[in-house]
Amino acid sequence: MSGCPLSVEGMASVLPASNKSMKSDRNTNVGKKFVHVQNPYLDLMDEDILYHFALGTKTHNLPVMFGDVKFVCVGGSSNRMKAFALRMHKELGCEGDGEEMKDICAGTDRFCMYKTGPVLSISHGMGVPSISVMLHELIKLLYHAQCCDVTIFRIGTSGGIGIEPGSVVITDTAVDSFFKPRFEQVIMDSIVTRSTELDRDLAEELFTCSKDFPHFPTLIGHTMCTDDFYEGQGRLDGALCSYSREKKLDYLKRAYKAGVRNIEMECTVFAAICGRCGIKGDPPGCWTSPDSRNQAQC
Amino acid sequence: MSGCPLSVEGMASVLPASNKSMKSDRNTNVGKKFVHVQNPYLDLMDEDILYHFALGTKTHNLPVMFGDVKFVCVGGSSNRMKAFALRMHKELGCEGDGEEMKDICAGTDRFCMYKTGPVLSISHGMGVPSISVMLHELIKLLYHAQCCDVTIFRIGTSGGIGIEPGSVVITDTAVDSFFKPRFEQVIMDSIVTRSTELDRDLAEELFTCSKDFPHFPTLIGHTMCTDDFYEGQGRLDGALCSYSREKKLDYLKRAYKAGVRNIEMECTVFAAICGRCGIKGDPPGCWTSPDSRNQAQC
Repeated sequence: MSGCPLSVEGMASVLPASNKSMKSDRNTNVGKKFVHVQNPYLDLMDEDILYHFALGTKTHNLPVMFGDVKFVCVGGSSNRMKAFALRMHKELGCEGDGEEMKDICAGTDRFCMYKTGPVLSISHGMGVPSISVMLHELIKLLYHAQCCDVTIFRIGTSGGIGIEPGSVVITDTAVDSFFKPRFEQVIMDSIVTRSTELDRDLAEELFTCSKDFPHFPTLIGHTMCTDDFYEGQGRLDGALCSYSREKKLDYLKRAYKAGVRNIEMECTVFAAICGRCGIKGDPPGCWTSPDSRNQAQC
Repeated sequence: MSGCPLSVEGMASVLPASNKSMKSDRNTNVGKKFVHVQNPYLDLMDEDILYHFALGTKTHNLPVMFGDVKFVCVGGSSNRMKAFALRMHKELGCEGDGEEMKDICAGTDRFCMYKTGPVLSISHGMGVPSISVMLHELIKLLYHAQCCDVTIFRIGTSGGIGIEPGSVVITDTAVDSFFKPRFEQVIMDSIVTRSTELDRDLAEELFTCSKDFPHFPTLIGHTMCTDDFYEGQGRLDGALCSYSREKKLDYLKRAYKAGVRNIEMECTVFAAICGRCGIKGDPPGCWTSPDSRNQAQC
């Protein structure tokens, strides 16, 4: 089998040894879109520790380890993200069966991370706060590694609304529980409303790709993000349920009317953070699950 | 070594084989405080699947497996909750070294769960949405298992404010980012404000216990819950930071003045859900970490 198109090993020889020398190169690569941070304090720090990845700028050579990353795929479950990495390893025609692939974040149990060629696969747990921690550290990792022209996807199961079980929903707009395309970020004791705009061209490109896989019903639609799996999504089987089946159905009908085709728990903050840091596109692609759990809310 | 005071095996012989027959006993145990749900639909369901635990009422005999549970300890990290279970196994004088202890939720990678004697140890990931999913299913589990007189604790690292690194904070009041003792639960597109009251007597009892361990500075104080680790807690080392060091310090000073002694990401929903379901006390006990990460915000 042939080597990966852009392997970690292949990049090592052409990258300088320290972060400092990389930083000066950042503005000389005209036409490239570098991942950036929006934090004036970061470059003043002697060391940046990515706590929840168990990585750091002094302990790890991030440009060598991650400089060639072009695609980042994130999902809630650690098992699934390992399976995804193994699948990508095979699809890219990388050497070996991938079983030797190590969890780069093995020093912590917060998240797991696998890399194969230019593809990084990372888990993020459940809900906005959990993925938010991961995204802050991911973006700093890509920034320190001088990554450019990076595209990020979120993949995961979700609850479908009025669509065929097992469908793939490519998100065009991430909306909150009130069907609004916004993310309310609490910064200490202030609330800042951020845009959840996504790259429509990328959504269309993914939709075009889906035509090669007609056995997966695929559509473009709005994805709704909730902060709770049970009451937040109107489920009738939580420990707490103070509403009627009719009220639940009315809510889901109104969501459908507003363009929502599936519900998950991370898309608004995903769109809000990635969009501000120069990462192309970022439409979450959410697979609705064919099991009864998710369809119960349709 | 002696057996556990209330082992799973010991209970099996005195418990009936099905959930149905247990339900009729629920009201005959006068003086016992049973864990309850607030959902009229639950008893009408033929089967209740606890999706994120990979357990269910038809596939598992929950009264036999969990009927003797009296203490539940929850924390974010799966490794730590396994270590805690092993520690409890030893402290309780259970047979064996505990290494044979199995993750009861091995069928999923969402959470992990260990049981030793009457103590259940469960991980919940990071943030309100993640622990909320776990708590709904935990309470249903305890309800189906006919558990009574259960006390639940949350243990975990947190960021201290104006206290000695490594201190243990026993929470008397869980407050939100605005220093208010409330949890705003979004139920579909409505917002319901819930109380985050905790059991003061239990907090005092824990504080009394702490006197046996004078090498851990221990205090009772308010714990603040945020939905974000970086901007939410005023950190200066996230991918996004739009505020000054002075503004951060001003916020932390105001938090201290309001009685807040530590910050974490789960306590308000923990108090709100457990308090409604008949679980005694539930003061989260939060250990402030002695590392520089957490003290950076002091």
